[in-house]
Amino acid sequence: MSSLLYKPSSPPLPYLPLKPYSTSTSFNNKFSIKFPICCTNNTTTATSHSKDHKLSWKNELQRAFQTSSPSKQFDEEDNDDELFQDLVDKRCVDNIRMLIVDSVQNAKAGHPGMALGMAEVGYILYRHVMKYNPKNPKWFNRDRFVLSAGHGCLLQYVCLHLAGFQSVQVEDLRRLCKLGSRTPGHPENVVTDGIEVTTDYFLSGPLGQGVANAVGLALAEAHLAARFNKPDAVVVDHRTYCIMGDGCAMEGISHEAASLAAHWKLNKLTLIYDDNKNTIDGHTTLAFSEDISARFKALGWNTITVDNIHEDLGEFKRALLSASNETERPTFIQVKTLIGKLSVKEGTSDAHHGTFKEDDLSKMRQKVKWGDREQFHIVPVVYREMQIHTEQGERQEQDWYSTLNFFRNKYPQEAMEFEILLNGGLVPGWEGSLPTWSNSDPVDATRGYSEKCLNHLAKVLPGLIGGSADLASSNKAYLHGYEDFSQPDSPWGRNIRYGVREHGMAAISNGIALHGSGLIPFAATFLIFSDYMKNSIRLAALSHAGVIFIMTHDSIGLGEDGPTHQPVEQLAGLRAVPRLLVFRPADGNETAGAYRVAVANRDVPSLIALSRQKVNSNLSGTSAVAVEKGGYILSDNSGEEVPEIILISTGSELCLCEGSADTLRKEGRKVRVVSLVCWRLFDRQPLEYKEFVLPRRVVKRVSVEAGSPHGWREYVGGDGVVLGVEDFGASGAYLDTFKKFGFTQENVTKILRSLLDR
Amino acid sequence: MSSLLYKPSSPPLPYLPLKPYSTSTSFNNKFSIKFPICCTNNTTTATSHSKDHKLSWKNELQRAFQTSSPSKQFDEEDNDDELFQDLVDKRCVDNIRMLIVDSVQNAKAGHPGMALGMAEVGYILYRHVMKYNPKNPKWFNRDRFVLSAGHGCLLQYVCLHLAGFQSVQVEDLRRLCKLGSRTPGHPENVVTDGIEVTTDYFLSGPLGQGVANAVGLALAEAHLAARFNKPDAVVVDHRTYCIMGDGCAMEGISHEAASLAAHWKLNKLTLIYDDNKNTIDGHTTLAFSEDISARFKALGWNTITVDNIHEDLGEFKRALLSASNETERPTFIQVKTLIGKLSVKEGTSDAHHGTFKEDDLSKMRQKVKWGDREQFHIVPVVYREMQIHTEQGERQEQDWYSTLNFFRNKYPQEAMEFEILLNGGLVPGWEGSLPTWSNSDPVDATRGYSEKCLNHLAKVLPGLIGGSADLASSNKAYLHGYEDFSQPDSPWGRNIRYGVREHGMAAISNGIALHGSGLIPFAATFLIFSDYMKNSIRLAALSHAGVIFIMTHDSIGLGEDGPTHQPVEQLAGLRAVPRLLVFRPADGNETAGAYRVAVANRDVPSLIALSRQKVNSNLSGTSAVAVEKGGYILSDNSGEEVPEIILISTGSELCLCEGSADTLRKEGRKVRVVSLVCWRLFDRQPLEYKEFVLPRRVVKRVSVEAGSPHGWREYVGGDGVVLGVEDFGASGAYLDTFKKFGFTQENVTKILRSLLDR
Repeated sequence: MSSLLYKPSSPPLPYLPLKPYSTSTSFNNKFSIKFPICCTNNTTTATSHSKDHKLSWKNELQRAFQTSSPSKQFDEEDNDDELFQDLVDKRCVDNIRMLIVDSVQNAKAGHPGMALGMAEVGYILYRHVMKYNPKNPKWFNRDRFVLSAGHGCLLQYVCLHLAGFQSVQVEDLRRLCKLGSRTPGHPENVVTDGIEVTTDYFLSGPLGQGVANAVGLALAEAHLAARFNKPDAVVVDHRTYCIMGDGCAMEGISHEAASLAAHWKLNKLTLIYDDNKNTIDGHTTLAFSEDISARFKALGWNTITVDNIHEDLGEFKRALLSASNETERPTFIQVKTLIGKLSVKEGTSDAHHGTFKEDDLSKMRQKVKWGDREQFHIVPVVYREMQIHTEQGERQEQDWYSTLNFFRNKYPQEAMEFEILLNGGLVPGWEGSLPTWSNSDPVDATRGYSEKCLNHLAKVLPGLIGGSADLASSNKAYLHGYEDFSQPDSPWGRNIRYGVREHGMAAISNGIALHGSGLIPFAATFLIFSDYMKNSIRLAALSHAGVIFIMTHDSIGLGEDGPTHQPVEQLAGLRAVPRLLVFRPADGNETAGAYRVAVANRDVPSLIALSRQKVNSNLSGTSAVAVEKGGYILSDNSGEEVPEIILISTGSELCLCEGSADTLRKEGRKVRVVSLVCWRLFDRQPLEYKEFVLPRRVVKRVSVEAGSPHGWREYVGGDGVVLGVEDFGASGAYLDTFKKFGFTQENVTKILRSLLDR
Repeated sequence: MSSLLYKPSSPPLPYLPLKPYSTSTSFNNKFSIKFPICCTNNTTTATSHSKDHKLSWKNELQRAFQTSSPSKQFDEEDNDDELFQDLVDKRCVDNIRMLIVDSVQNAKAGHPGMALGMAEVGYILYRHVMKYNPKNPKWFNRDRFVLSAGHGCLLQYVCLHLAGFQSVQVEDLRRLCKLGSRTPGHPENVVTDGIEVTTDYFLSGPLGQGVANAVGLALAEAHLAARFNKPDAVVVDHRTYCIMGDGCAMEGISHEAASLAAHWKLNKLTLIYDDNKNTIDGHTTLAFSEDISARFKALGWNTITVDNIHEDLGEFKRALLSASNETERPTFIQVKTLIGKLSVKEGTSDAHHGTFKEDDLSKMRQKVKWGDREQFHIVPVVYREMQIHTEQGERQEQDWYSTLNFFRNKYPQEAMEFEILLNGGLVPGWEGSLPTWSNSDPVDATRGYSEKCLNHLAKVLPGLIGGSADLASSNKAYLHGYEDFSQPDSPWGRNIRYGVREHGMAAISNGIALHGSGLIPFAATFLIFSDYMKNSIRLAALSHAGVIFIMTHDSIGLGEDGPTHQPVEQLAGLRAVPRLLVFRPADGNETAGAYRVAVANRDVPSLIALSRQKVNSNLSGTSAVAVEKGGYILSDNSGEEVPEIILISTGSELCLCEGSADTLRKEGRKVRVVSLVCWRLFDRQPLEYKEFVLPRRVVKRVSVEAGSPHGWREYVGGDGVVLGVEDFGASGAYLDTFKKFGFTQENVTKILRSLLDR
């Protein structure tokens, strides 16, 4: 637990400059390095075509092609580098396919269909296109790769292994899908180095999440490039690649994200669509008849179709080159593939998942001239082939460090800020910037206090960036004095306009957090609409994305908009999400306290539920610091004794409880009021602390929260009373609605009395 | 509560014929009645242009247009019917706008922007186009209208009032957004007659839900038309209209539904897009730069743009006519409007919600020549104008009854089935069709038992229709022997292929249920993906849509697919949704029991969580009938005494508990095992029954469920032990994963022992 708890540093350092940081830099493309696509670059391919290298391939290529490539016998003296590379590429792809087949056979589980069909795509990206260094998978300026069709992770595991990532050894391929392995059934960034984000979904499920993550990664790059790049020092410059399947194409979330990617002109984002015409239930014609390229074009994408990748690798390479030359639009490459390529199940949904029959297996071995090679055989020169590219990646990383040094010397102020970000984005003492409230401050809603917190934090946290799903003014989640993120006008802007796209917003925010560059994304909407974001919130927790979800209008107290807008069960559902920190602050100080924990925890998402209606700015007894314990005693008149009764509450109802408690105290009763602002943090306190706040022998307890009673019994015990909302809310003025559901001081006092008299 | 509880009828009636019903009928368009668009039909407009009627308009038209229509003075002798109607229409629209303004001013709340901008659209639909009878808002063959941009409900309230719906009186307009009024902040079908579905969302929130509902309504019509219409007896024939806003256009759910609408060729669906270029945060250019018509075209829609509706009503009328002539594609009409039309805020996001200033108000009155008319003034002849259309609706309903009588006589078998549907879809004794299981039956997963239930039910319930989000084989949610719903090939098919679109599936299912024609929709996917459907599931509960959600792979027990696929907190979150019935059956008999309650409750949605892994077909002590109590004693060896300890469990873990209980019983312990298959149903039992099952004095209790511990304390009490999953799951074989999280007989026995020894 201690790792979850915020520990303040001291003494506080001076704040960073308050102005927006890089308004002097311009649209990031202006200074970007040209995309180094090796396959079309003689300088870089020269290495790969050395005589020695050709010689090392001789036997393998003869084995593979001497009979099946009638047009031309392989000859190491041949000067046709392009043909040579083409044959080599095809052979590497053969090896990848055999590794996929062997892994699935060995595990008796897994999804070979997409992996086999997309082998060429995976190989070309890892061998010829993407910039990365397997010796340092977290190198900041690497290209990002997201497998939105996560069930195809085996392809990625095999590519990572061949490219030399320590995280995936042959032994790991053998342990595919086994408990505790580094090769789980779907890729998890927190398990396997080289995996950027956790893309769970497979063709059958809610795919598309990865597409939105990729949009977030590309946004992060565009934003940072605009803030830090200089004409003579380009320190942020990478592309983002994402593979999506038919399932991703159908899911609404990918549509939301794709619409935003085009709106934001994320030209360095390339989406590769595995158009294999099959999903779990059968051919896509069962449920899909869009002209998908036309759709992406209508959204504003550059669209390219690759018809024949299994025969002509060059077609796909050329598409990637076109993508890299695009300066305004993101690129959508529709690649027509055969699912389960090589197997007899090729082209059918049967190939999607499951193992192969023995005769299919032997036919596949024959097709690629594999002979009696043992399972998991890797042609040694395939490693060498990949190395040609990864060595270039190593050099690129070295070059980047040189550039960074130059940048440090020439632009020290920007460099300081850049390095704060690369180190996680937190400056010692940042928490001192949070506002405090006294009794004399005017009352406001907690969403109003939140606005102040956000805007104070923005000045000291250079990575704070985010926005709302078209509710910036209602959520009060806008960084005043900063611009909107927009290309080409203001990519350095730290406000993001998501439009009415909650699901896309949440998954894009996860992508921004997982960019690993000190950006601290926040995402705001009404609490009711967390329903639309639920799975992305969950994925934030699972993939250690420290997103701050700002959810206003947090109860039936929002009033007139009625039951469709009034959250009831949302808090209960969100509190049950593992690892997620859910806060419901009661006043200004607790709101600041929630931000204090949320910001400090960069590997854990937080969700802050805020009121629409006004509450005390400084409810007597609240404390920003106490919030880190999740629950604490707000007030108590029992002195050395234990109280007769304990009232437990959160958010806007805490003040109401305090009022009822006062009434009873005046009658001589000993009453304790406890603020339970974050259940999970309280649950993780030492037993003694929990016993101190909620002594077991005080069985008369009442909880008051204008939400589902679900879960409250944990704190109230079997003898207590849970005052919650058991049905949907109602359209009406705030106080009328609260009264209808019993959230008045009178009613709470009545409940307390009846319990005391029991 | 009793209304929630299923009460079996007796004696059971014979089953209906087992064959699919209407394979003899053909594609529904073949026999459909031509769309009666009055504005272009001389026969129907003749009535409205009688001399008397013209005379009755004289004063009002003179007041409105004598100065502002320079081209032509109004003259009751004028023979230009079209011009006359145009002037009348414009004046009616003026009156609608003033009612909107007055309602908002009076309520000091509400969303006038969209209502004012779309006044022409609302008026034309209710005055000239839609088929309905305000005297019988539930007439089966009426056109369906859905306001997906629900915040514009004021427009619909006003139209309903003018059209003569009893449900909305001027007094109701005066009580807009007041607690308990019939005019809540967003339209609710269960509150106001004339509202088809509950569309909560407003421009700022997760809109799009209504678009998907409309697709469900249109699907229901197409399906029933194909099953029942005859060349000489068309008993099912209506159109579905839906208004969507910019927010709907951005939400992913509307995209999913729109893609399916085109795939299914729902030509009688018309989607009217209020293209007003404004959302809450400002101009749509902030976050929206699609060519939306091109997008819908790419999906396969007929697309039409109406540029100038505020000046030329005919343009919109012609678009509707084109939609009605379309035989294959759904129609998307992009209507360019001015948000807040009439106000000084016209065309800006300021007009979206909120009241008007006094000078704006008086300018608006001037513009429409309202003079000093009092608030809520309605020109009497406007009522008469609407009546011309609604009287036609009454006649259409009469004609429909005649057709129905003819149908009854000529096609008695089909008519019998049709009337079963119109009466709710349940045949007395239907529950007798549910299978039972004995110990000798082979073991299967509960998803397997569910498959048998579904397929037995399909034979006796003519309305059972549904499908899966591309997981039909995994969810085992397919009606064998029935075709897929598909136009034109097999619109009578009762299997729906949703593709990988969970959110769309859920909201479309709500639409099918709310069609009110005895269709009983089921919607299937993995439990984890309920996250994508959460808000639609909630709306099913709020709007009384008796959808059956079939959620398989219901715990970490699904194994290899890993934590991204393994539900943990989903059950907790869903159990907290008001009114929703969540079942987690333990074997074949409890699965049948869950269906028994789910099908019987046509106004309440049910969610049945089912295992991937195999469990007993007939665990000793289970009972299908007992499921309706939500919880019951499975086994107990305490005789007349109370047990020493109680084990409470659900689903696949119940068998494990029984094993542990047996071990302890052999050691002489008195152990009770309780199945808590549906919490909500148990909660609603009389206190005595609950005390009988879980006596208060037995404080040693253990709950065992492979899901979040959240909420279990309610049943386990403060002294018990909750065995649940507190973190995300793990990728691994089923038994390995269960072991890792403590779900073994050994571990449960150990927990029981330590509690007994305490």
